[in-house]
Amino acid sequence: MPTHDTRPKPVPRHVTLPQGFTAGATTCGLKPSGQPDLAVLVADQPATAAGVLTRSRTPGAAVAVCREHLRRGRVRAIVCNSGVANVATGARGQRDAVAMCDAVAARLGCHRTEVLVCSTGLIGHYLPMPLLLPGIGEACHQLARGTRADADVARAILTTDTTIKSARARMTPRRLQSRTSRPAPGTAIRFGGIAKGSGMIAPDMATMLGFITTDATITAPLLRRSLRRAAAASFNRISIDSDTSTSDAVLVLASGASSARAIDAEGPRFEQFTACLTQVCCALAYQVVADGEGATHVMRVVVEGAASESDADRVGRAVVNSPLVKTAVHGADPNWGRILMAVGKSQATVVMENMSITIAGRVVFRRGAALTLRAAERRAIERAMQRPEVEIRIHLGAGTAGVQWLGCDLSKQYVTINADYTT
Amino acid sequence: MPTHDTRPKPVPRHVTLPQGFTAGATTCGLKPSGQPDLAVLVADQPATAAGVLTRSRTPGAAVAVCREHLRRGRVRAIVCNSGVANVATGARGQRDAVAMCDAVAARLGCHRTEVLVCSTGLIGHYLPMPLLLPGIGEACHQLARGTRADADVARAILTTDTTIKSARARMTPRRLQSRTSRPAPGTAIRFGGIAKGSGMIAPDMATMLGFITTDATITAPLLRRSLRRAAAASFNRISIDSDTSTSDAVLVLASGASSARAIDAEGPRFEQFTACLTQVCCALAYQVVADGEGATHVMRVVVEGAASESDADRVGRAVVNSPLVKTAVHGADPNWGRILMAVGKSQATVVMENMSITIAGRVVFRRGAALTLRAAERRAIERAMQRPEVEIRIHLGAGTAGVQWLGCDLSKQYVTINADYTT
Repeated sequence: MPTHDTRPKPVPRHVTLPQGFTAGATTCGLKPSGQPDLAVLVADQPATAAGVLTRSRTPGAAVAVCREHLRRGRVRAIVCNSGVANVATGARGQRDAVAMCDAVAARLGCHRTEVLVCSTGLIGHYLPMPLLLPGIGEACHQLARGTRADADVARAILTTDTTIKSARARMTPRRLQSRTSRPAPGTAIRFGGIAKGSGMIAPDMATMLGFITTDATITAPLLRRSLRRAAAASFNRISIDSDTSTSDAVLVLASGASSARAIDAEGPRFEQFTACLTQVCCALAYQVVADGEGATHVMRVVVEGAASESDADRVGRAVVNSPLVKTAVHGADPNWGRILMAVGKSQATVVMENMSITIAGRVVFRRGAALTLRAAERRAIERAMQRPEVEIRIHLGAGTAGVQWLGCDLSKQYVTINADYTT
Repeated sequence: MPTHDTRPKPVPRHVTLPQGFTAGATTCGLKPSGQPDLAVLVADQPATAAGVLTRSRTPGAAVAVCREHLRRGRVRAIVCNSGVANVATGARGQRDAVAMCDAVAARLGCHRTEVLVCSTGLIGHYLPMPLLLPGIGEACHQLARGTRADADVARAILTTDTTIKSARARMTPRRLQSRTSRPAPGTAIRFGGIAKGSGMIAPDMATMLGFITTDATITAPLLRRSLRRAAAASFNRISIDSDTSTSDAVLVLASGASSARAIDAEGPRFEQFTACLTQVCCALAYQVVADGEGATHVMRVVVEGAASESDADRVGRAVVNSPLVKTAVHGADPNWGRILMAVGKSQATVVMENMSITIAGRVVFRRGAALTLRAAERRAIERAMQRPEVEIRIHLGAGTAGVQWLGCDLSKQYVTINADYTT
């Protein structure tokens, strides 16, 4: 079974790539594996912040503190520990989450409400504060920019993941200027992001965290709107096992350190900003799914011809979550009957006579009836389904709306990870 | 891997136990296994009928015909084939389903709309009518009452199931009379039922069918209301893999052949009738879950203290469908953190400070915090979780509503069945 590779890898820069950010990480000893477990991400000056947090009705203590501290939209730092989720820990857990913010705030000389906190790992355990608080001091001492710092924080937020997840993007003003003029140096806006998603080592749940930095200057309401749109099109359209974590959080900090013009109104530049943010979120979401527990294939479900976007969403969610579709993908079996079943149970409007299903680029079902596949055609589809990514394209024949969802297959390894190794 | 046991077993009588019914079955050759694949269930006189049918938006042809024929509420027969589901077969599939009704109607001398039809098996194949129509003649020729006939029809509706599913109940007038008077002979109302649910041999989907007979005299609107209530408390509260079949149907026929007084109004006798019908449905639903693909444990989820029944339902459904809870049950791991997670994602109202979770009779989480289990206690829970049925009891601390859901564990065998054997 794969384990964390602790050797420093040549990871491209990400969270400290945008100007105005430093990062640091350390090992407090929260994980039996002895892997890094604490990360701090700091903005040189108060940054504009936005977040999307789990909708779970049994959220962790950190989620409640984050929600509170995000209200003002101005943030200096994110502190995140892995190994212990601080969930189902009552008033003591709440105090511990606030104490983590306090420890960072004391180091940076800011207010506790300017610090966001995330915890991920086992449920039902208290945070070992005597280990954690000195660790926060150490991580703040390590704060730096560059490849090494980026790799360290990306690694320190992992739990059962087998790989680091990172992404970056760049918004240049070129498209909005005339083609002949070159952009002034320093006017590009940069984005960097890291995420953690489900894996194998201390199986408890598919907890998802994402931290994104940008040096854009942008107002808090616009940043919130942009993140909501980006998350809706990325993190909210993936599923590994249909289970929602008590600790899910995606946070974005905008330092305003780029000399690019501020984004202070909706319009083309706001759209371009949202497109870049969405690009980073989609890249991270893809990496989370690809590292899904026991996964051997990414399943990309493209829904088209829906009567509405919410109908398309329902179909995408139903297909990526269907155990029968997931096992068919695992077995490289072009079993379109199961896809049809999942479409049917989604309750979306379907016009059967106009409906079609395509697997790995080949039509298998058209105008409400199965195509008779020759044995060679069937084998070609089966071969194509053995690639790391399998695309399922569904046209509902009911309208013009469409969305994409990402999921993964269901393997025996998933059962091994989650049944055979007790917590 | 278990296969159909074709030897006649001493099955207690069920569908022909109520007066006024005969049954017959045969083998048309629709299954590669050569198992029986056609069943006919006939009422001597037009019976009052009701049904609950799949809500799938891509239903099979038989479902549409059933819906139409159930309108008048008077039915002579149910004909059911297994092996081919007649789903995604367009206008030709529709004609074939009607032709099955016609064939039975011609034998019985009734109208085609007095025959209900069900098909279960592979999706996307046309019914082989040249095999099926002579088979219908043969099954009608076999019509009989008794243990043998009952066992034959129960077996002929199976697909991937490994066991026959049957149940019966008896409603006596005793409780409603004085304790001293004995009921007159023949005034009891009898119920018999059979079902099919997911299994292992030709894996396509967890298709669910249930056929119930009773000799009660009851009006069609009351029978419909009673079945809706019984199905809501049984078949609609089970899940093997969260996937909804395109062919699900539960049908009930009331012959009126008992000499018991007619049930023609709501009141204590209607309630008693519904209780008996619910008892049969619950027994069948349990057998379906216990025979779930790859299942080794039945998971009974008792939700209490909910703010509303719909909240309790949400929690029950979320817990039985959670792959992380299902794998924990498979591994006999009292991982209450995953149960808490599933409760949280259900979006039901939870009062954490009052919430508790009990696994196999032992409290593991109380008043919003984990109990510290001694090693011996933990081992005792793990041992209790190795029994065939595992009970998970969840008190939401938010009200007084409660429901029960049934599910099963998720095993490697489930993946083997559905991934390794292609259709």
